[in-house]
Amino acid sequence: MWVYLNERFVKDDQARISVFDRGFLYGDGIFETLRIHHARPLFLDRHLHRLRRSCESIGLRLPIPEPHWEALLRELVERNRLERTMIRITISRGVGDMGLEPSEGPEPTIVLFPRPLPRLTEDQREHGVRIAILHTRRQPSCALPSHVKSLNYLNNVLAKQEAIEAHTFDGLLLNTDGYLAECTTSNIFFVKNQRLHTPSLQCGILPGITREIVLELAREERIDIQEGTYRPEALIEANECFLTNSGFGILPVSMIDAQLFTSSKAGSVTKTIQHMYEKHVADSL
Amino acid sequence: MWVYLNERFVKDDQARISVFDRGFLYGDGIFETLRIHHARPLFLDRHLHRLRRSCESIGLRLPIPEPHWEALLRELVERNRLERTMIRITISRGVGDMGLEPSEGPEPTIVLFPRPLPRLTEDQREHGVRIAILHTRRQPSCALPSHVKSLNYLNNVLAKQEAIEAHTFDGLLLNTDGYLAECTTSNIFFVKNQRLHTPSLQCGILPGITREIVLELAREERIDIQEGTYRPEALIEANECFLTNSGFGILPVSMIDAQLFTSSKAGSVTKTIQHMYEKHVADSL
Repeated sequence: MWVYLNERFVKDDQARISVFDRGFLYGDGIFETLRIHHARPLFLDRHLHRLRRSCESIGLRLPIPEPHWEALLRELVERNRLERTMIRITISRGVGDMGLEPSEGPEPTIVLFPRPLPRLTEDQREHGVRIAILHTRRQPSCALPSHVKSLNYLNNVLAKQEAIEAHTFDGLLLNTDGYLAECTTSNIFFVKNQRLHTPSLQCGILPGITREIVLELAREERIDIQEGTYRPEALIEANECFLTNSGFGILPVSMIDAQLFTSSKAGSVTKTIQHMYEKHVADSL
Repeated sequence: MWVYLNERFVKDDQARISVFDRGFLYGDGIFETLRIHHARPLFLDRHLHRLRRSCESIGLRLPIPEPHWEALLRELVERNRLERTMIRITISRGVGDMGLEPSEGPEPTIVLFPRPLPRLTEDQREHGVRIAILHTRRQPSCALPSHVKSLNYLNNVLAKQEAIEAHTFDGLLLNTDGYLAECTTSNIFFVKNQRLHTPSLQCGILPGITREIVLELAREERIDIQEGTYRPEALIEANECFLTNSGFGILPVSMIDAQLFTSSKAGSVTKTIQHMYEKHVADSL
């Protein structure tokens, strides 16, 4: 596999960074994961917008000008002969002085590599996945701004471990106030009383790009939608539930803890959103 | 400089890890920093105890048996011809499958290297340092157990940036409930009404090793001491304040925000604790 590392393309076994890189020592950096479809990056503008915002929030210089990104991603995809994949972009503050204080000088480290699309069975795509409400809570924005997709993902790793121990596909994290937040790598939506609900950004969630697109499409289609703060009990009597992320798009949820959703297949609102989203993906290329 | 990396000693410019290391991608790992005094590690047993506990809490295998550590540290110190320094031990989950789920297989990455002792002026050691109470809050234990000294240190990096912008030596983080927690790399103590106070572990702080030693020594000396939960207002009318960490030991605080402590020099309790601690360091070698 070819990897882009600091202005060069190298083979994966040559893609090495210093142990003094602040990304490794402190998680001092950010990342972005986007989908390649028909060899082209999906929603690149939105991903670059979030990338730039993540960088600015932690005082990190974005080392590549925005007009260069498309050609760079194209070259990575071509070298790896990929049509459908994910690309992870990682930017750390690089090798600087020791200690927490970010020194002025360091050159950011930038790494791009492909990673596989989420592996899902037909059954999971069609009938949905089971998720558990976790004890692990989403780290709050007052400690680390939630719109920053940072290299500090141990909170999510521990949450994922907890979900695996519960024998579920993924886990739902509440925020420190006990309101629904998000899953380890996806946002959540549910349908109740014919209305689509999703936790608002004020709940301390990552502003997911698929989430943002779903909200826009739903508004265009005049689907009744509410962003708010919801206790786990709000899920009781919900009829449908689904997850969104850039990798799998829209994924139905069949069950949360012991609560089964009414239909054993993805519900009608979920199906409508799936179709709208897939059409939008196709139109955007 | 010589660096120990995965069973070998290598020169610092050869100390490189894969960009696929989970320490770099997710901050999926832990670290420990200890002081070398007269070429010997200080309080090694306590550091190894915390290291083991950090590893266990995130399901990480400690790749080096405990009896081997002393010889390993000695060789690192000898190769680098150091008498007085800090050593940072970093252990990440290594290169595993992509995605949050830690796969069973990966070999942990282990890195040891020296780093300088904290640079402090005589004035700072004698008269103390200024600190600011920060807006950034300490990440809560419900998101990431506070006894785990993990590679997720962006919370601390952002806190340090905020302290620098406030033109102070360091910053004091409150926990998400608004109680005093700790500084970016140290624990805090204050003296009020002849009693020594420090936030309890329940405040979501890292259980500092110097903090633990200070508590033990103070109890032996029958100094009145209280671990508790304190609002920032508790600092008003405090007479003395100091910070503890493995690098600088006991460091007086001269001022928190606009509040000046009564004496312009380190107070008498602080001096007593400093002497007790330095004697304990000398005795322990």
